[in-house]
Amino acid sequence: MKAEVIPGGTITSAKGFRAGATRAGLKTRGGLDLGILYSEVPCVAAGLFTGNRIKAAPVLLCQEHIAGGRGQAIVVNAGCANACTGEQGVEDAAEMASLGAKKLGISAQDVLVASTGVIGMRLPMELISAGIEKVALSKEGGHELAQAITTTDTFAKERAVALDLGGMELIIGGIAKGAGMIHPDLATLLCFLATDAAIDAGFLERALRRAADLSFNMLTIDGDTSPSDTLLILANGLANNRKIEEGSAAAKAFQAALDEVCIYLAKCIARDGEGATKLIEVAVEGALSAADARVAARTVACSPLVKAAVHGNDPNWGRIIAALGRSGAEIDGSKIDLFVNSICLMKGGSPQPFDENEVRGAMKGAEVPIKVCLNLGSYAATAWGCDLSEEYVTINSEYTT
Amino acid sequence: MKAEVIPGGTITSAKGFRAGATRAGLKTRGGLDLGILYSEVPCVAAGLFTGNRIKAAPVLLCQEHIAGGRGQAIVVNAGCANACTGEQGVEDAAEMASLGAKKLGISAQDVLVASTGVIGMRLPMELISAGIEKVALSKEGGHELAQAITTTDTFAKERAVALDLGGMELIIGGIAKGAGMIHPDLATLLCFLATDAAIDAGFLERALRRAADLSFNMLTIDGDTSPSDTLLILANGLANNRKIEEGSAAAKAFQAALDEVCIYLAKCIARDGEGATKLIEVAVEGALSAADARVAARTVACSPLVKAAVHGNDPNWGRIIAALGRSGAEIDGSKIDLFVNSICLMKGGSPQPFDENEVRGAMKGAEVPIKVCLNLGSYAATAWGCDLSEEYVTINSEYTT
Repeated sequence: MKAEVIPGGTITSAKGFRAGATRAGLKTRGGLDLGILYSEVPCVAAGLFTGNRIKAAPVLLCQEHIAGGRGQAIVVNAGCANACTGEQGVEDAAEMASLGAKKLGISAQDVLVASTGVIGMRLPMELISAGIEKVALSKEGGHELAQAITTTDTFAKERAVALDLGGMELIIGGIAKGAGMIHPDLATLLCFLATDAAIDAGFLERALRRAADLSFNMLTIDGDTSPSDTLLILANGLANNRKIEEGSAAAKAFQAALDEVCIYLAKCIARDGEGATKLIEVAVEGALSAADARVAARTVACSPLVKAAVHGNDPNWGRIIAALGRSGAEIDGSKIDLFVNSICLMKGGSPQPFDENEVRGAMKGAEVPIKVCLNLGSYAATAWGCDLSEEYVTINSEYTT
Repeated sequence: MKAEVIPGGTITSAKGFRAGATRAGLKTRGGLDLGILYSEVPCVAAGLFTGNRIKAAPVLLCQEHIAGGRGQAIVVNAGCANACTGEQGVEDAAEMASLGAKKLGISAQDVLVASTGVIGMRLPMELISAGIEKVALSKEGGHELAQAITTTDTFAKERAVALDLGGMELIIGGIAKGAGMIHPDLATLLCFLATDAAIDAGFLERALRRAADLSFNMLTIDGDTSPSDTLLILANGLANNRKIEEGSAAAKAFQAALDEVCIYLAKCIARDGEGATKLIEVAVEGALSAADARVAARTVACSPLVKAAVHGNDPNWGRIIAALGRSGAEIDGSKIDLFVNSICLMKGGSPQPFDENEVRGAMKGAEVPIKVCLNLGSYAATAWGCDLSEEYVTINSEYTT
């Protein structure tokens, strides 16, 4: 019951899902910017949303629509986040759902919406309306949809895995977008998942939460949490498997497959952070609690000084220790072991002699693994981030203009 | 009883203080890097230290020496932080205090030490020893000392004020260094203050804590808290005033003067943040609690996206609202008023039309004031930070190499 990656897989890889996208004219830089995901039949649905107290209008609408645990379509645009747009924004999000429902011939209640892009600008509803009209749905349309949700991303993020449950095949596919304003508290901006599994709604919601805790909630680009963060999963049951319930072997296999897809997408987001040239993976072991392991790993991955040092291949490991120290996790400076790409820089709190050129070389790769053993307990966690480059600043000092 | 700024004032402006610095050879870039502050007589002393769980060796030593509430000298170096240096580091810090004591003919217990610079490197004790030997103390030496404690700072940070207590003049002088790894939890790296006031030790400690809460603890450059943060004050009593006790009119005047010096130095540190081209001042009003006002102001000042937008004069105010939303402070999106340099961008949660060129022009100044009215309660706080530039990344990707 091991999941296998589907080469070229995407969110429409599972049975009964179709998608499409169009250029509605919302992105100033051009390109696909509006899309739809659609299931032939109503789905069991679950969602997780931003921890930011300022929630974009589409988030408010999704929370309302998904409360009943079902959904059938997602309408999404990039270029404008419909956030900080007051009552008008809420009306616009509802109108976007209605336009999608009308096109698809389903209830507006079964349509979920998401928007990403500039904050504080009203959705251009004429473009949205014309765009929804134009979208053509197809089995291959997941790739277009993955493109349409990007903003400052440099590549589309897609993944699908197949899971064999004793001769019965399930598929879980997903797409995500990231790039900036990414910090754990559902740190994904947008991620949509679609599966043909028949599945218990309560289990689906819990499975999604657990997967997010291992993936998107361990991801950080810049410490800023977006008001638009939205993670949705639709399960349409067309695989005709015996309904997956909590506690079963099938549930365990489904969870592992879902974790794999979410971790893969989260790492894609980290790798493609604004201005990023490298993925940083921070593994913390030996923490006194799970919370300590998580906060320690995330704090190191988020430290601008660690990120800048990684950018310059500078083995300035003191910054890693300083970040651990301010993380709030229980630590004992005299017990820490620290490794960069398996090279030991500190053992039991004492700096170890190392070959600077060797460490610099190890930091030049596309992935820089940092491992910290706190040697206090038995809890571990892994976080992902990226280096901080001059390009990040350039992108973000010229974003709206 | 109002404090007056002393033009050209520094840490040796108060009676009985002398200082000096030398080039010991600790900074790879050259320049003064080791200095001493000395009072002719023993002082009442108080200190505040980093909240980082990893504390540099000089911090551990200062905490021990200052426990008795007295001190007479500070020996300080830049270029090497003596942090993450284990038992050896603690021995080196003690040796640094002993060398200072021997030179000055006082007890090592009355010598405080501080070190700033690269983490994880052992103090070169031969250079320290020879440097201490060479330092010549003088009444004007505060200026040299202010230079000697800088690392990536581009200017020395000095201030002194005179306080007239009914014909009796007190002076409070101070110096600070900042630039990077600066985040509220005593966010100063190093700040030393010297006054000739006769003052109650308990009041001095509380006054210092209150001044830090209004100044250094409302300061952020990059979100990273240093293991070396040290704020020290020495009061030698040579002004011969009636001893200042908590609750008196003199205490109130002293507190106001101390606040002024600390806020001035904190703003200098913000203005001179690594790569910074501007000072950002974030004033939050109408919060439900003092803690909410403080965390909201600091979160906005610390947001990399807000900082990058300010760098590019980009009126992307949605990022300010997004930062408020993730700050943890109680907020109601429909009540927020937002002003950049007095231009209203949001009123009662609704975006206001504004002239983009006017706002861009207002953001081009050396100081960018951001005001947020939460309209929920009566608490206010002000935080200081700086813009995020490509230069910040360049500096920090090449720090040790």
